Amino acid sequence: MSATDDLNLDFNAAVQRVHHRRKTWPATDLVDVETIRHEFKAASSGRQMKRMQRAQEEGHPVKLQPLFMGISAAESNSTHVDIGFASHDGTYSIDFAVHTLPSGRASFHNGTAMPEEQATQFADYFITKMHEYEEEHLYKFVAAGVPARLVKVIPQLPSRLWAELDVVPMVFERGLESDEEEQLGVDEEADSMARKALMFFGPNNLPRIQVGRRNEVEVDSNGHALISSVEQYRQSCTVETWEATMKIVDQLKKHGTKIAFFNTTPQGGGVALMRHALIRFLRLVGVNAKWYVPKPKPEVFRITKTNHNILQGVAAPSERLTLAQQDILNTWAHQNATRYWTQHGGPLASRGDGGADVIIIDDPQMPSLVTIAKQMDATRPVLFRSHIQVRADLVDAGNNPTAEVWDWLWHFARHADVFISHPVRAFVPACVPRAAVAYMPATTDWLDGLNKQLDPWDVSFYLAELNEQARNQHIPLLQYPARPFVAQIARFDPSKGIPDVLAAYAILRREHMRGWPAEKTPQLVVAGHGAVDDPDGTAILDQTLSAIDRQYADLADDIVVLRLGPSDQMLGAILQSARVALQLSTREGFEVKVSEALHKGVPIVATLAGGIPLQVEHGKSGFLVEPGDAKAVAGYLAQLFGDESLWERMSEYARTHVSDEVGTVGNALAWLYLCEKESRGEKVVPEGRWVVDMAREETGVEWTKGETRLSRNGTVTG
Amino acid sequence: MSATDDLNLDFNAAVQRVHHRRKTWPATDLVDVETIRHEFKAASSGRQMKRMQRAQEEGHPVKLQPLFMGISAAESNSTHVDIGFASHDGTYSIDFAVHTLPSGRASFHNGTAMPEEQATQFADYFITKMHEYEEEHLYKFVAAGVPARLVKVIPQLPSRLWAELDVVPMVFERGLESDEEEQLGVDEEADSMARKALMFFGPNNLPRIQVGRRNEVEVDSNGHALISSVEQYRQSCTVETWEATMKIVDQLKKHGTKIAFFNTTPQGGGVALMRHALIRFLRLVGVNAKWYVPKPKPEVFRITKTNHNILQGVAAPSERLTLAQQDILNTWAHQNATRYWTQHGGPLASRGDGGADVIIIDDPQMPSLVTIAKQMDATRPVLFRSHIQVRADLVDAGNNPTAEVWDWLWHFARHADVFISHPVRAFVPACVPRAAVAYMPATTDWLDGLNKQLDPWDVSFYLAELNEQARNQHIPLLQYPARPFVAQIARFDPSKGIPDVLAAYAILRREHMRGWPAEKTPQLVVAGHGAVDDPDGTAILDQTLSAIDRQYADLADDIVVLRLGPSDQMLGAILQSARVALQLSTREGFEVKVSEALHKGVPIVATLAGGIPLQVEHGKSGFLVEPGDAKAVAGYLAQLFGDESLWERMSEYARTHVSDEVGTVGNALAWLYLCEKESRGEKVVPEGRWVVDMAREETGVEWTKGETRLSRNGTVTG
Repeated sequence: MSATDDLNLDFNAAVQRVHHRRKTWPATDLVDVETIRHEFKAASSGRQMKRMQRAQEEGHPVKLQPLFMGISAAESNSTHVDIGFASHDGTYSIDFAVHTLPSGRASFHNGTAMPEEQATQFADYFITKMHEYEEEHLYKFVAAGVPARLVKVIPQLPSRLWAELDVVPMVFERGLESDEEEQLGVDEEADSMARKALMFFGPNNLPRIQVGRRNEVEVDSNGHALISSVEQYRQSCTVETWEATMKIVDQLKKHGTKIAFFNTTPQGGGVALMRHALIRFLRLVGVNAKWYVPKPKPEVFRITKTNHNILQGVAAPSERLTLAQQDILNTWAHQNATRYWTQHGGPLASRGDGGADVIIIDDPQMPSLVTIAKQMDATRPVLFRSHIQVRADLVDAGNNPTAEVWDWLWHFARHADVFISHPVRAFVPACVPRAAVAYMPATTDWLDGLNKQLDPWDVSFYLAELNEQARNQHIPLLQYPARPFVAQIARFDPSKGIPDVLAAYAILRREHMRGWPAEKTPQLVVAGHGAVDDPDGTAILDQTLSAIDRQYADLADDIVVLRLGPSDQMLGAILQSARVALQLSTREGFEVKVSEALHKGVPIVATLAGGIPLQVEHGKSGFLVEPGDAKAVAGYLAQLFGDESLWERMSEYARTHVSDEVGTVGNALAWLYLCEKESRGEKVVPEGRWVVDMAREETGVEWTKGETRLSRNGTVTG
Repeated sequence: MSATDDLNLDFNAAVQRVHHRRKTWPATDLVDVETIRHEFKAASSGRQMKRMQRAQEEGHPVKLQPLFMGISAAESNSTHVDIGFASHDGTYSIDFAVHTLPSGRASFHNGTAMPEEQATQFADYFITKMHEYEEEHLYKFVAAGVPARLVKVIPQLPSRLWAELDVVPMVFERGLESDEEEQLGVDEEADSMARKALMFFGPNNLPRIQVGRRNEVEVDSNGHALISSVEQYRQSCTVETWEATMKIVDQLKKHGTKIAFFNTTPQGGGVALMRHALIRFLRLVGVNAKWYVPKPKPEVFRITKTNHNILQGVAAPSERLTLAQQDILNTWAHQNATRYWTQHGGPLASRGDGGADVIIIDDPQMPSLVTIAKQMDATRPVLFRSHIQVRADLVDAGNNPTAEVWDWLWHFARHADVFISHPVRAFVPACVPRAAVAYMPATTDWLDGLNKQLDPWDVSFYLAELNEQARNQHIPLLQYPARPFVAQIARFDPSKGIPDVLAAYAILRREHMRGWPAEKTPQLVVAGHGAVDDPDGTAILDQTLSAIDRQYADLADDIVVLRLGPSDQMLGAILQSARVALQLSTREGFEVKVSEALHKGVPIVATLAGGIPLQVEHGKSGFLVEPGDAKAVAGYLAQLFGDESLWERMSEYARTHVSDEVGTVGNALAWLYLCEKESRGEKVVPEGRWVVDMAREETGVEWTKGETRLSRNGTVTG
């Protein structure tokens, strides 16, 4: 099989493709004809390597050193091309190599795309060489600077760096110092690219979130981080979803429709995760969509956090949204609007004055933007999304803190044309006219760091990092892969059912696995991104550690409880390596993490709460239990650990039965349908329907039997 | 004692000052009258804190979480001022606080300086609150964004943040988003300052090295990192050194003399360390000095590295500087000169065309810049510094690789007006006319991260980091403070005598300490910044690990051998905590690390090699031995560990007998003397004298009895 045949395999086989390639090095013909002008010189201490490789062989993930890379290519003559590599440790340029390859008929100078087969060979070459270097020195590349000229020649290179090497590809027209017209050597350009890529990364080895002019969120370092391709998105969904989406995309492009999203923060929550992915996708397919956030004001965030809890009915009864606080929130939204958004050319300016054609307010904290948008342009459509599990029953009852917050919110939000909610009927207060209610699930991105399938090399990097954090926090270490583990990935939140997780695990170990040798039993991981400023989170973490000490001392060495840093791949590596996932929430919004587990082929045991049951087919992709029923959870865990063929069957079913409705393309389909129709002046009247159903109807792409759909049970009027 | 009395204490008491303050919180009157508008909310898990505090009490340094801080202040009314704090974890803003204090008569709005006493109270307040927060949550602040307006009011604040909290103060006129005229709340401004400070930091929690227009090195983030003050420098040297230096500074300022330094790299070596400090100091005192480096070219660095080894006589005999390589180096220097430096207004342009008044080439790799500078302006002075230990005997013998490299270098460098060398006669080839030879030692900066006295809190941060690196590399852990240790801080270089270090330690343990309980015996630390691209370094590290396994297996658990990252404070923390320092080089240039150990009051055992004996008074500040005499080293170590009063005496003598000649002010005095005199057209004719002696003579500030001077023995003509 030639390397190019790979391209015909489908997306789900990508992992196998990586593994295959790595097993069969050298995979490409180019390797046989390369000339080494300068080889890497970094010399790792042989004795140190031996110590570490021994540890690795004994099953202890070894801490890899994070590095940055720069690459480059330039024709050395009419038949050959020089390939430059330069590695950088964050402070120093540490190494470089220049290899010469036959260039075939390709022109690297004027940047025209190579024939696909040849491009694949070259991309293979870069990927192979980088990974060889990683393996030889126990390095892990975090990001690579890539010249835009090279991407024109090998378009598949950036997204493959991300998908196969877990390297963030940072694409630049010019290197760090090349502000003049000049010809650089490939060694210089590679070095310059590595240093430039590095500039975009902060202390956590993560790209910094950037907010630019008019407070627009500059997603993916304003497009420099080119992590995915249209083709990958196409392969991530069914032909039906793709067809429907592209029909609407074409309309929006034809009319040059401008879409503007608003919410309070560019990072850290579900809205931000979805929005980064959506903007990334829309940029790739050419839809004009922008995303704006207000200037951060710490004092306001204290209020909004409490508001959030009040709406969900989980705040202390004494917590209220005072008139003074309402005033602070309204003033804040107003100031941001006038400072950044309503002026000529700003997104909230009237359409005649350069404003956007559709406005989307995806936040309960700035509802006054709805009225401001309408004041600026009364006939322009405004969509309002309520992305939290509002205790509609409390709102409907009235005369309580939840109803108060809602009244303030609804005073503004009622002017929106459509009211979008998680697909759970109980989250929508009665005062919202049924005609305006539309349902849309939370979504996730199959190509991003949370969901892409990581190579074992990269998994080991993240799990070694995990164990380093565990050691620093004096928490037991994860013994994977020597032992399997069960994982619940969730915030430390009162509603996430963590006591039930511990109880279920204890029943499993003490009853179902009584007498098993410890090395056959699973460990338990309870982990989530931790917001340090979240007092609830700390209290729950404390209770959890305390419960382990007091009630589960016999299992304490096997329970890994960790508040994690903000790395997506860290969560992905944990979930991907788990034998079974848990999601035992007592209350829930939608929780797309459930679908993320299924997508990785990890069977889940989860509760009948919020949107969870819409995602799981009981007995097929996982098991559903009543909230609090730890005994039932333990029973299902015992089945999954005791019956290999059940696990295999369930894993395979889970992996292949995740609905497009929870992926980025599905998310785009829903939003774009609303935007397209509303921007044409056609009033959307959802009347409690799912947006995606309306979109499929509108585009004439009917649901087929083979497509997995979320259950509609949550939105049936009872 | 009121907090302001502190200001009258001298610099050397700074540490005691910090300790004192921390012991006697709240130290200032302000704390009694503060009003908390919003307090920090970050809640650490009590159980986790307990686990970690227990570990800390048991003597295990606990890993602290690195954080960034932003601060702000603004008058809330005519009598009070709001103080804002905001903390950031590198990804998220995690917390903030707003406190209100009486402002006295001070104006925070128009930024006029407070009376000294009040300023000290306010600085105390910021420092106290930040450290309380660190202790409460086991955090470690890396940097703090500070508004320039606030620095005008409290000028001592930035340098005290650095000296007392080990926080890099980043001073900005405006926050991250404040591009318009607007009034921010102190919460917003503090948050914005924290995020802006963060922008200057890379993945290693270190400020990125910045190179700007014309490839000028933007020292200290182009002045934003305001880590030291004129007053601190004044207190870091004798009144004589200060007086002489200021006389010349005044002349240079009066004439507006422009000085331009050139060398190949802005980071990573002795020249770069000295140059950062020198430019920082000259900026503070108002001398116009700039520093330029070429655009990095990896291919060239391979050549220059080998050249370096050839000049020192330590390269493989087969290594030569070929004509082709000479050509590459000359072309590289020429291209950089014409691209960045010789054009109108560039430093190498003629003086009439905006060029500098004095040119300093401090590098053996770009000697052709000497001739280029002369071509541009024949009468302008050019100083050439040879900062490596040239094997002058090989050069003089001729007909070998060293002589070849020298001939190439000297072909250009001979056109310089002064030839400056380390103060060792044997480093100067005979062909250099004696009239042109001047001696100048390497220097270090007493206020920078290598040398400032770190608070125990910060020491524990760096040593926990050290142990994390040790653990990751499967190296034994440092057990300090439970056990003392002996340290050699040096690169893994064949000339550093590491085999002698191991041998001496083994004799100490096996013979002098036979039968001692292990916990009373010292560990051994052999550590240095590691250049991964340095094959020599890797080979030496390998040999060291291998020798430990084979010859010293009985001591293997007590020997910590580590290649360290680029943090200055990490090295400082190790040296500061060592009981005795070693420097057992077999060959040496100057090695200012010897003086660094003495300055910390750490007695040293070192060899009679290169400039080392010029810095140590045998029997008083340390012991000097012949290179290779491990037995003698062990004997002296045994004395220092066996005789507490000897150690005390020697430590005190060492701490108080370090010459100003090896500090930044002394370095400035020497350079500025040469620049001032030469720029006036007065030809300096050193004839083998030390530059500092000429400078003292010129300024009429004679050496006094109380001043510590380096030994002149190395430069006596034998």
